[in-house]
Amino acid sequence: MSTRTVIRGGLVITASDETHADILMEDGRIAALAASNTPAAEALTAERTVDATGKYVIPGGVDAHTHMEMPFGGTFASDTFETGTRAAAWGGTTTIVDFAVQSVGHGLREGLDAWHAKAEGNCAIDYAFHMIVSDVNEDTLKEMDLLVEEGVTSFKQFMAYPGVFYSDDGQILRAMQRAADNGGLIMMHAENGIAIDVLVEQALARGETDPRIHGEVRKALLEAEATHRAIRLAQVAGAPLYVVHVSATEAVAELARARDDGLPVFGETCPQYLFLSTGNLAEPDFEGAKYVCSTPLRPQEHQAALWRGLRSNDLQVVSTDHCPFCFSGQKELGRGDFSRIPNGLPGVENRMDLLHQAVLDGHLTRRRWIETACATPARMFGLYPKKGTIAPGADADVVIYDPAAEQVISADTHHMNVDYSAYEGKRVTGRVETVFSRGVPVVTDREYTGHAGHGVYTPRSTCQYLT
Amino acid sequence: MSTRTVIRGGLVITASDETHADILMEDGRIAALAASNTPAAEALTAERTVDATGKYVIPGGVDAHTHMEMPFGGTFASDTFETGTRAAAWGGTTTIVDFAVQSVGHGLREGLDAWHAKAEGNCAIDYAFHMIVSDVNEDTLKEMDLLVEEGVTSFKQFMAYPGVFYSDDGQILRAMQRAADNGGLIMMHAENGIAIDVLVEQALARGETDPRIHGEVRKALLEAEATHRAIRLAQVAGAPLYVVHVSATEAVAELARARDDGLPVFGETCPQYLFLSTGNLAEPDFEGAKYVCSTPLRPQEHQAALWRGLRSNDLQVVSTDHCPFCFSGQKELGRGDFSRIPNGLPGVENRMDLLHQAVLDGHLTRRRWIETACATPARMFGLYPKKGTIAPGADADVVIYDPAAEQVISADTHHMNVDYSAYEGKRVTGRVETVFSRGVPVVTDREYTGHAGHGVYTPRSTCQYLT
Amino acid sequence: MSTRTVIRGGLVITASDETHADILMEDGRIAALAASNTPAAEALTAERTVDATGKYVIPGGVDAHTHMEMPFGGTFASDTFETGTRAAAWGGTTTIVDFAVQSVGHGLREGLDAWHAKAEGNCAIDYAFHMIVSDVNEDTLKEMDLLVEEGVTSFKQFMAYPGVFYSDDGQILRAMQRAADNGGLIMMHAENGIAIDVLVEQALARGETDPRIHGEVRKALLEAEATHRAIRLAQVAGAPLYVVHVSATEAVAELARARDDGLPVFGETCPQYLFLSTGNLAEPDFEGAKYVCSTPLRPQEHQAALWRGLRSNDLQVVSTDHCPFCFSGQKELGRGDFSRIPNGLPGVENRMDLLHQAVLDGHLTRRRWIETACATPARMFGLYPKKGTIAPGADADVVIYDPAAEQVISADTHHMNVDYSAYEGKRVTGRVETVFSRGVPVVTDREYTGHAGHGVYTPRSTCQYLT
Amino acid sequence: MSTRTVIRGGLVITASDETHADILMEDGRIAALAASNTPAAEALTAERTVDATGKYVIPGGVDAHTHMEMPFGGTFASDTFETGTRAAAWGGTTTIVDFAVQSVGHGLREGLDAWHAKAEGNCAIDYAFHMIVSDVNEDTLKEMDLLVEEGVTSFKQFMAYPGVFYSDDGQILRAMQRAADNGGLIMMHAENGIAIDVLVEQALARGETDPRIHGEVRKALLEAEATHRAIRLAQVAGAPLYVVHVSATEAVAELARARDDGLPVFGETCPQYLFLSTGNLAEPDFEGAKYVCSTPLRPQEHQAALWRGLRSNDLQVVSTDHCPFCFSGQKELGRGDFSRIPNGLPGVENRMDLLHQAVLDGHLTRRRWIETACATPARMFGLYPKKGTIAPGADADVVIYDPAAEQVISADTHHMNVDYSAYEGKRVTGRVETVFSRGVPVVTDREYTGHAGHGVYTPRSTCQYLT
Repeated sequence: MSTRTVIRGGLVITASDETHADILMEDGRIAALAASNTPAAEALTAERTVDATGKYVIPGGVDAHTHMEMPFGGTFASDTFETGTRAAAWGGTTTIVDFAVQSVGHGLREGLDAWHAKAEGNCAIDYAFHMIVSDVNEDTLKEMDLLVEEGVTSFKQFMAYPGVFYSDDGQILRAMQRAADNGGLIMMHAENGIAIDVLVEQALARGETDPRIHGEVRKALLEAEATHRAIRLAQVAGAPLYVVHVSATEAVAELARARDDGLPVFGETCPQYLFLSTGNLAEPDFEGAKYVCSTPLRPQEHQAALWRGLRSNDLQVVSTDHCPFCFSGQKELGRGDFSRIPNGLPGVENRMDLLHQAVLDGHLTRRRWIETACATPARMFGLYPKKGTIAPGADADVVIYDPAAEQVISADTHHMNVDYSAYEGKRVTGRVETVFSRGVPVVTDREYTGHAGHGVYTPRSTCQYLT
Repeated sequence: MSTRTVIRGGLVITASDETHADILMEDGRIAALAASNTPAAEALTAERTVDATGKYVIPGGVDAHTHMEMPFGGTFASDTFETGTRAAAWGGTTTIVDFAVQSVGHGLREGLDAWHAKAEGNCAIDYAFHMIVSDVNEDTLKEMDLLVEEGVTSFKQFMAYPGVFYSDDGQILRAMQRAADNGGLIMMHAENGIAIDVLVEQALARGETDPRIHGEVRKALLEAEATHRAIRLAQVAGAPLYVVHVSATEAVAELARARDDGLPVFGETCPQYLFLSTGNLAEPDFEGAKYVCSTPLRPQEHQAALWRGLRSNDLQVVSTDHCPFCFSGQKELGRGDFSRIPNGLPGVENRMDLLHQAVLDGHLTRRRWIETACATPARMFGLYPKKGTIAPGADADVVIYDPAAEQVISADTHHMNVDYSAYEGKRVTGRVETVFSRGVPVVTDREYTGHAGHGVYTPRSTCQYLT
Repeated sequence: MSTRTVIRGGLVITASDETHADILMEDGRIAALAASNTPAAEALTAERTVDATGKYVIPGGVDAHTHMEMPFGGTFASDTFETGTRAAAWGGTTTIVDFAVQSVGHGLREGLDAWHAKAEGNCAIDYAFHMIVSDVNEDTLKEMDLLVEEGVTSFKQFMAYPGVFYSDDGQILRAMQRAADNGGLIMMHAENGIAIDVLVEQALARGETDPRIHGEVRKALLEAEATHRAIRLAQVAGAPLYVVHVSATEAVAELARARDDGLPVFGETCPQYLFLSTGNLAEPDFEGAKYVCSTPLRPQEHQAALWRGLRSNDLQVVSTDHCPFCFSGQKELGRGDFSRIPNGLPGVENRMDLLHQAVLDGHLTRRRWIETACATPARMFGLYPKKGTIAPGADADVVIYDPAAEQVISADTHHMNVDYSAYEGKRVTGRVETVFSRGVPVVTDREYTGHAGHGVYTPRSTCQYLT
Repeated sequence: MSTRTVIRGGLVITASDETHADILMEDGRIAALAASNTPAAEALTAERTVDATGKYVIPGGVDAHTHMEMPFGGTFASDTFETGTRAAAWGGTTTIVDFAVQSVGHGLREGLDAWHAKAEGNCAIDYAFHMIVSDVNEDTLKEMDLLVEEGVTSFKQFMAYPGVFYSDDGQILRAMQRAADNGGLIMMHAENGIAIDVLVEQALARGETDPRIHGEVRKALLEAEATHRAIRLAQVAGAPLYVVHVSATEAVAELARARDDGLPVFGETCPQYLFLSTGNLAEPDFEGAKYVCSTPLRPQEHQAALWRGLRSNDLQVVSTDHCPFCFSGQKELGRGDFSRIPNGLPGVENRMDLLHQAVLDGHLTRRRWIETACATPARMFGLYPKKGTIAPGADADVVIYDPAAEQVISADTHHMNVDYSAYEGKRVTGRVETVFSRGVPVVTDREYTGHAGHGVYTPRSTCQYLT
């Protein structure tokens, strides 16, 4: 940790700047930046020098939506905090915000403690927690205040999954009111689960059991409806709102309408909605199960609305909703009944690369890539300026990225603990070369040099878009 | 110029970061930033050290809309490039983009050369030019290509002022088509001048001659109409669009609608629309004339829509449209006929302070202050990363800003060459203390230390929001 | 019944025509119309001739939303079918569509039979039934088909009143799907009752118990939310939708948006929302309780949006939601707890007069008065062309209306069985003079000449706006 | 004329009613209606009885947009008032409102007199006039008042055709202000002709000369732009607005938006936009020229928006814009230069049949057919209740329509004086059988029994949608 490192000659990209600069990292932080090839740069000396000529030097990614070891449908997400954070590091992500889960009838504290126990000592990179609130009551509401004080400043509720994570509108309103008071941010899974469950039951009754049906019953209109409802409830509560994994054109439209009216409403999408579609869900031989997640993949024409939303800032964040289940033994639980397929996709390792490909494809600028994948998630969830940027004093979470390297995404080569890739065979240009976490190289020239336990719990301040 | 300067201990604010850092300026550029109170910071040494403890260190302002020595209504804007740029420096602005004017029947080149002659050797800070295109024809269109190549990459057209600057929709379409090809950006004065002139004539015929009437005949609906029309013409041409001095709620709504549809449409507003209103136009004893500009001041309730637009990025830039005319002898030309009052307000010196006050008032965050006043105008008009940010390699245009100092805006103390202030008596918190232009102190501890001719012409690349 | 009557010389107004014509009624139907003062008119002869010179001759009103003897909050609406339909006749209404109620755990059939028993032999005018569906299940869904076949073609559901009439989104979706199949029309009470109940509980906990609070907790945004949700569920089901008692600007906006998109969505408002406001709810000495109904009265500025909606056809029907409770003994149940005030207002007698006043006030044309109060409710609920128009073959439900007579609305003079008037002291111009129900005079020159039992049950065909 | 006629047994359809009734026509007016097969019906006796059993009995069509003998592009529309009104009668239309033309530099009076001279004594059916205002000035504005008084209550302006009919926004605003005062209605040809002419010139310069190009240069966005601009100008003037021949989805959207805001804005479309498309413009061998009109035909997907607009009342009227030019000798003027093709299509004979086909195709109800083709145009232009309905006292303009007859539309069988049909070969169900104009049979069992000079000039009151 006492080692100083200089990264020389790269193009340093942040949410707002692109500059050729040398970076000095010292004691785990960015100590200085100097214009490359100037006396000031030469004056930066260190035990270790890394040459980044021809490379990008970017902030480590912040993935604000992961589910390591998440229990779902009688099984658990296949990545542990150890395997999942290692894969994240491989993919250029240096911070995750995972979801601790409250079980119905239990307290937030109990859930949070359990998740701390899972993560502590196991992570390759830094981590923080959101709290899933499954059971709003007077005790829970009080616990929310305590959690905000100790750095768990965001709370997820579900309008889907009745009987499991589902909150009714009264519970949502109460939690939002509390968040309006204590500075917390409500994150919403916005799908009308009550209506969807009717459609699921009817489809199964008609003998429609394929994974493809998952995408048909979880209708875009029911995502848009729930999005609108969440916005209105937040408006009544005087609270901000963050909608997770937005996938439908109609839902983006609701967010845009609210933002045009000046409401503090935010939206996240994920690479799977930007790159995959219902065509994947329809893959034969039950392969569609690999792509079962909720909100579901949409027909391809929705992708344009998501890219547009990211460009126009109606969507602010790209997270992964990383929640992998092996095809063999896990996804297969839903053979003959799509509703039993564990919901979730692997992706924590692929996000930075896929979004760089989007830069090449003309969907985003380089700065917007960093903004949506690093800076905004950090600000949104109170990790800024420690995380999400390269600036003096920030944590030295830095990625050296080769914009010209080509790679083919594949389960054969990825590091996530899951037996398939959602992007199998996809050729992308751009690749992570070296990754520093607080100044420590955890990936070095495409070799893993980190270790479980390097990553530490990082308490968060409140959302920085509301001040 | 070879002097190196270190600014120590301030809070460095850019469009995306806030960090306590020391800054080394060398050879007119930002050479390095280092986290304050670290060995790296101590290693920054220089001939001169400035203590910024407790102060903000911000990029010099970029005012993308000024009219020095502008001919209008038989007189000239009262600030020369010398007086106007000096006042800009006093107000923390280190770059202006002024408007060269093509006269009908003459070429763009002739107009541009004339403006170069006015500015050269006279400016306290750096400057660039947009080109006002008053006469679109085959020759003009070819000249546009040449101007883009030499760094005049934006072209203003007027839907108002028939017979003077006015372009009809065909001329606008042709210029937009050309801009779509050569990378230029069309800036639009969006008011339906043909309809407004009818209302002006009718008002005068009814004997309504007060300055107040100026605000009544130039209706918000006719600003919104022209804004919509410009958007549609740009859509037909496949060109981007930048609408200047947006003042009406209904016009913001048209921009928001277009941006929701993914169109590359941008909007600028000005401090006068954010802080003044039709109440000022109605001041007695012809004092309302001081506030006559076009688009006109609006009823106070429009201000909320403008602030909301700035927050939600439906408006991107705050410029001044600085175009001062003395009350005595100039504004007075319109006594008895509001239509003869020269249109324009002084403001180049007040912008940074007024927007800082807006931060204190809760309208904007500090980062958004810098983004709308420095970074975005620089990017919009191809001056980035030389201007608008504090990053290694950028021009050392840096302002030390005291966020706690109080001041009262007044013509008695301002440095603009005009006999009144539009904000006379307004008390604001925050004040420019020291200003560097390319590393040279032009204002030092509230003393002017610059000189005419320090500022140089700065050719621009094309708009950076379109790649 | 075999008596023939000719009404001579009036201005006959229908939804589309205004014409000076004599009308021959024979065997309970309109037999002929002839241009007044022509040989053809002279050829119309009858046992009885009524002179309507200087008067309007209009179709009898169709009030598509009444609750006679409705059980609510431990008491019953104070008008029986006998008193309520007599009052309706006095007010120029010749058909009501009342709501039969299914209780949770019981069948539709049982509820419908109970309502038939209440009405049969007691009504002064013709009547029909909608069915309130409180409990959607497989049996209920089958019963819906049967009811459509026997002339009960519309089904009301509640998004409010959890634990009483409330249906969740799954139950709503199922009922809508069934209606899409059997031709039924879902009528929706659109308020988010789950969220409202939270606000009610919180207000009571804060000691806020006045009737005024009823209007504050049942927020316009929560009406708009539910309206939007109902529209989306109907869209998913492929069903039409009729939203009852629309009161909020924001809800009208949702209907307008849906209709712009071509969705078969309809809206009803009521005189109380057009003429009363939260000012009434704030009347002192618990008098505000007289105006407690749900959706609640809104601030006065909402009225303009409702009138605009009626003019532009974003709202189609004006009904009364007549559900009277005496102030003494009934409304008083809620002293000290606004949530215990029985919800409902008297109005069945006032609707035609209030809307005529709206014609004089410039809100509606005469034809639109008849369209919203007679023709459209008849078509919407399958009573056309028997009801709602004056055309050969239609039922001879005809009102002779004096457009010049003045009256003051008062509980002292009204015929509803309730101890107050919601419009006490309101002076209006226009008054019902004579009313025919199927050719029989039930009100004659402002004397009641009808009798209980004249009115008959009138089965309905399906909604006529969907073909 | 003194002959009385009874039409027995048909289904009488008006804008609001469908009833089996016998109709007595006497002295040119509807004298009485009686329910068929009742004593009242039997009592209707007449010299002549027509059996309409199994047929529809509908009001004669009102075509509010025709151009007989219109000068355009150096030629004249090929139908004279004699041939055109005869063809109209054949097609079930009994009233036309044609456009008198003011030439630039001449008075309205002179133009109106010229059109009276063309029409008088030549028409088979009744006619009225709108006035095309090509030259707004002080004299013209005064003449508008006089014309309103003598029954020419609507004035058409063009945002297209610079140099011919074009008015600039100031002229439009002035005319709208005058109409706001005198009760006149401004009808607008809403296309941005200034911009379109640039695109025309550019296309021709590129050698693109085919009729197909006509549809490409007259862009939907430029129709929408002009529509929006006309709405805003009308809003500034406080005047109502009627937009003619709406063809583009985006233009319908502007109308819908304005109507949602409560503005008195109306829209007309024409059969060619509902049934034809750019596919026709692309027909080979210059056949596309047959379909050249302005606004132009649009891609097929625009049709759905037009039908939706007609259903939701965002569009109110279907007129023909009948303006025929023979292919041979007239349309051919534009060989090698699409901009020289005379603009216009024949259609006055086909409108009622095509819209009846739309009823069968499920686009409109029967009542909406009559409303858009008869009642609303009559009300919009002050001809109601003489025209557009079947009610006692109305003119006896009545059509007996066989809803089951099949026909094939063809130039071989049509009666318009033009050598082609825009709908050649189209098979439709429904056909006019007999047509009465003021009680006189002008078509009798598919034989022409009228004569030139039967039709008379019919002065109009002001628009009936504004009171």
